[in-house]
Formats: sequence, structure tokens, C-alpha cells
Amino acid sequence: MRETIPLTRSLDLGGLRYDGSELILTLPLAPNVNDKGCAFGGSMACLTTLTGWGLLRLALGEQQQPADLYIQDQQTKYVAPAWAKMYSRCSWTEAEKSEFLRNFARRGKARAGVSISCTSDDIEVCKMDARFVALRPGTSKAA
Amino acid sequence: MRETIPLTRSLDLGGLRYDGSELILTLPLAPNVNDKGCAFGGSMACLTTLTGWGLLRLALGEQQQPADLYIQDQQTKYVAPAWAKMYSRCSWTEAEKSEFLRNFARRGKARAGVSISCTSDDIEVCKMDARFVALRPGTSKAA
Repeated sequence: MRETIPLTRSLDLGGLRYDGSELILTLPLAPNVNDKGCAFGGSMACLTTLTGWGLLRLALGEQQQPADLYIQDQQTKYVAPAWAKMYSRCSWTEAEKSEFLRNFARRGKARAGVSISCTSDDIEVCKMDARFVALRPGTSKAA
Repeated sequence: MRETIPLTRSLDLGGLRYDGSELILTLPLAPNVNDKGCAFGGSMACLTTLTGWGLLRLALGEQQQPADLYIQDQQTKYVAPAWAKMYSRCSWTEAEKSEFLRNFARRGKARAGVSISCTSDDIEVCKMDARFVALRPGTSKAA
């Protein structure tokens, strides 16, 4: 991500763990601070978007499936301000992962909805529900 | 914003127009590109968040009202990929603006829901519905 999405370097996005079914990414506070000294809501939306996107991207990579993966829509609730480093988690079940990959292999297109939770100082600070679509390169959403 | 929210400098956020009831902000594509060469969805969420936040912030500033303004929740639909500079617009009616400012002056707390639309090459690329809350400094959401 840090190679292909330059903003992730400004965010100082970090990867913490991936075990095949859960991805955890992190953001430090300093580059993502707002006028109030806590984390900018847009930074949190970037972090949670990238966590959901990354989980699906990694699954497609495991199958050596070239794919363009787009976010379609998301809903985010900002539960509390974040005053420290942020940890964002997204997971899915083996059944959800298999269905997504099977649909993509069969039809060259697959959708998945995932939930992402972001914590800071062990408090949940925001949660996002997001839907993504994977398309074979060349069958892009729009030219 | 460029002074107090450092990420806005990485996004290269620009201000285009404010007329008291509508705010238009812009983002260039280059620093906000993704792995597919179009705009990163997180950058678009930052842009639309800042446009809604900025409109309310400017209104509070016009009344010389010190306030902490937080996003509470948002829903975003990514309608099409953005392949060029992005323009984000948010407006409200005089009645909506007056009610928000009146509530804030009276109670030291006010909420407002606004819609933000983002275009690129004259095509709508994403739309966000967002709710914000303004609080008097010191009565913050959380310590």
C-alpha cells in the first residue's frame, strides 16, 4: 500500500498483523492530528477503509488473482475522539472468504461487505461498515 | 485547515469558494492516487468530511463562537472513480444555518446534518451525508 497509495506514507500507515482471516493496521496520532489535538476523522476513515480493502486484497493475492478492488460505500460512526495511536481490525470467516474468492474465480466479479473497528487506548473510537467490489482488470467500473 | 490539520497539506487541499451558504474545496489527483491510478476512496472521504466540517466551522467563525466541531457519523457512496481534480461542494439554507447557530448560542451545543457532493470531470464521483456536533471548548465529548 505504501508503494501504490502515496497518502498512506503521509498517514504513516503501519501493518501490525495478518493471519489469513484478520488484518490489523495502525496509525500514529502525530501526522493525523486535528485542530483539537485528537485524530482527524478523515484519517480514521482512511485507516478503516484501508483495513477492509487490505483484507480483501490479501485474500485475492493468496489466490494469485489479478483484480481491481474498489470501495462501493461505507458508513462510519465516530464513537469517541482518539488521543493516541490507532489500531484498526477487520476480519471475516472462512466461509465469507471462500464465497468471495469462489465468486471472483467463477465470474470475474465479487462483492463483500466487512466491518472494521478502530480502537485507541483500548477504547473503540470508530467503526465502519464497508462494501467492496473486485473486478478483473480491464472490466473496470468506468473508463 | 492547512495550519491545524497537517494531513490537509499532504492531501494538497485547496479552497475554491465560500459565499456564506456554500463551500467548495478541491483536491488534485496526484497526491491522492491509488493503486489503480484513480483517486483513493479515503482521500475522497477526507475531502468531503472537510467540506462539511468547513462549512459549519466558517458559520461559527462568523459569529465569533469558539467551538469544538466534531464529526459524529457519515455515510458515503462511491459512485464512480475520479480520474482528475476533485471538487467537493456543501451548502445549507439560511434557515438551517440560523437554527444551528441559534442552538449553539443558546445551549452551547448544536448538531447539523449536511450533504456533500464530490465531482471530477463534471461527473459525480462520491456523495456523503454527515452529521456534526459543535460543543463549547471544555465541554468536549471525552477528556
